[in-house]
Amino acid sequence: MSRFWSPFVHSIEPYVPGEQPKLARLVKLNTNESPYPPSAAVLEAVRSAADDDLRLYPDPDASALKQAIADYHQLDAGQVFVGNGSDEVLAHLFLGFFCQDRPLCFPDITYSFYKVYCGLYGIDYCTVALADDFSLDLSAIPADVGGVIFPNPNAPTGRLLSLDVIREFLASRPDTLVVVDEAYIDFGGESAISLVADHDNLLVTQTLSKSRALAGLRIGLAVGQAPLIDGLNRIKDSFNSYPLDRLAIAAGVASYADEDWFRETCGRVMADREQLAQALGERDFSVLPSAANFLFVRHERVGGAELAAALRGHGVIVRHFSSPPRIADWLRITIGTSSQNAALLAALDDVLS
Amino acid sequence: MSRFWSPFVHSIEPYVPGEQPKLARLVKLNTNESPYPPSAAVLEAVRSAADDDLRLYPDPDASALKQAIADYHQLDAGQVFVGNGSDEVLAHLFLGFFCQDRPLCFPDITYSFYKVYCGLYGIDYCTVALADDFSLDLSAIPADVGGVIFPNPNAPTGRLLSLDVIREFLASRPDTLVVVDEAYIDFGGESAISLVADHDNLLVTQTLSKSRALAGLRIGLAVGQAPLIDGLNRIKDSFNSYPLDRLAIAAGVASYADEDWFRETCGRVMADREQLAQALGERDFSVLPSAANFLFVRHERVGGAELAAALRGHGVIVRHFSSPPRIADWLRITIGTSSQNAALLAALDDVLS
Repeated sequence: MSRFWSPFVHSIEPYVPGEQPKLARLVKLNTNESPYPPSAAVLEAVRSAADDDLRLYPDPDASALKQAIADYHQLDAGQVFVGNGSDEVLAHLFLGFFCQDRPLCFPDITYSFYKVYCGLYGIDYCTVALADDFSLDLSAIPADVGGVIFPNPNAPTGRLLSLDVIREFLASRPDTLVVVDEAYIDFGGESAISLVADHDNLLVTQTLSKSRALAGLRIGLAVGQAPLIDGLNRIKDSFNSYPLDRLAIAAGVASYADEDWFRETCGRVMADREQLAQALGERDFSVLPSAANFLFVRHERVGGAELAAALRGHGVIVRHFSSPPRIADWLRITIGTSSQNAALLAALDDVLS
Repeated sequence: MSRFWSPFVHSIEPYVPGEQPKLARLVKLNTNESPYPPSAAVLEAVRSAADDDLRLYPDPDASALKQAIADYHQLDAGQVFVGNGSDEVLAHLFLGFFCQDRPLCFPDITYSFYKVYCGLYGIDYCTVALADDFSLDLSAIPADVGGVIFPNPNAPTGRLLSLDVIREFLASRPDTLVVVDEAYIDFGGESAISLVADHDNLLVTQTLSKSRALAGLRIGLAVGQAPLIDGLNRIKDSFNSYPLDRLAIAAGVASYADEDWFRETCGRVMADREQLAQALGERDFSVLPSAANFLFVRHERVGGAELAAALRGHGVIVRHFSSPPRIADWLRITIGTSSQNAALLAALDDVLS
């Protein structure tokens, strides 16, 4: 603490990311990274871009990447915003859109960074409670809020809303900005990007960290109608002119060009998820239906904190959230490779026996 | 413009970076990049790091890079903060330290992003006028300000303050946070980092974009006593847990290990700067004394905008600032390679004849 801090710095509660252990031999199922390496074409693109031009600033607009994303989703490049990971994109949109007289609304159990952004920018918020089965009922969101954000599928539950439900919600709240955070959409959901053309109150965020296996490079994006993207650009250009470096831009472009890799790895994760869900069910776990690259599970007899600690003792790291109390007995487990999933099950058999 | 923008978004005036032209054959002397490629060891480190581990998040603390910087400057790693370019570091410190009841103070002619950050975060500011010779008199800064920031050497003038003057200022304002922005310090100045141990009201920012030729990778840093660094970490952890990607961390570590490359390239830039200053003087330019990798110059007869446009017609880009009016006839010219500098002089001879 320092007398030079701006007054609010004392009271903010920073986000705590999942552990990034320095021991390589751990089975790391705690931060929803891809268990598979990035596309070989992406690695080659990065190595090629590691040349003398690194002395030069990157394109401040990252036009090549925006165009690649626009082409992939059949959009105009002016409907795409990119940033240094989707966390930066989210931070900018909280500042740019949610500093309103009326409070922002999000689910009571969701990505815990949302509250942190509210603290950072002095944004008032309210929450809508998930149902007992952790499903989100959008119609329960108050009508007079200043904005809405939710992940789809939700984190850490993995539960998915259908496009029809989102479309109906957008139509019923034409004067409320709705942000759909699609960090995990590629593992079985249908993206709301297809709704952007018809809804000027929709922003969709995505990341290349999960389904494109590029967490180490920090690339996130937002898609919406041009006036919303213009607002994000105004924030970005008042914060950091060059948020994406040359190598990230090159990697992102290459990633959207390798559709075979993308389909194959997402398909493998989804198939392994169903196998793992079944195996966990056989071991007395409640397993929520998941459209993400993780499962949210609770054991019938052993508490969440205790189980996470025991697994760690067996070299397997999963994510446990001590709050809110309602999820204290649940664990979020990233889908790993087949051998990682087998190691998890073996560790569980040991712990539970 | 959109009805969903937060109210302040309408009024902010984003920063306008120097042009990043897409034509490679232009002589680009407009954004103060290094004319030399990065160290070969840095490029090799980046290529080696472009491996399967890109699927994993980077170390959120970038500990390896902080330690490399700490070792280089004989600091504790807890006195070092790193970010996605020094612009991100500056943005965080404006929010974390300058949101005060009393206004921030900076020179009237300086890095134009300072005003932009004030607009982004609603920070009140006042300016202190540079003297006729563009020198900065720190004692003219009012005693009751909420913080002070200035570049040393200043941008776009290139004028340097001595360490003695800065030390005296720090001692005379023990209750005012002073940020010394040392983006260009490696080209002939003495870093205020050596003053950090004795002054808890000092933060020093630097960048790897200029003297370490890594503008394309976005790495910036701040150095100060631990309570100030803690404050920056609180902001960073409320904004983006992983601002530096794996490749930037690897590149930064490798950069601090190649001292020979660093000394040689900085030495070459400084020697070429003196040659270029003399050649411009012979062509009827006023040339400010510079401790940066650029010169700030004014021609006796031809206006700044006119000259910049004419040079561009000859394939040479330099930076012209249309405001404030006092510098409208000045140009900021980056020191290039010997052949780039010769091309500039040839173009000038053509334009001025």
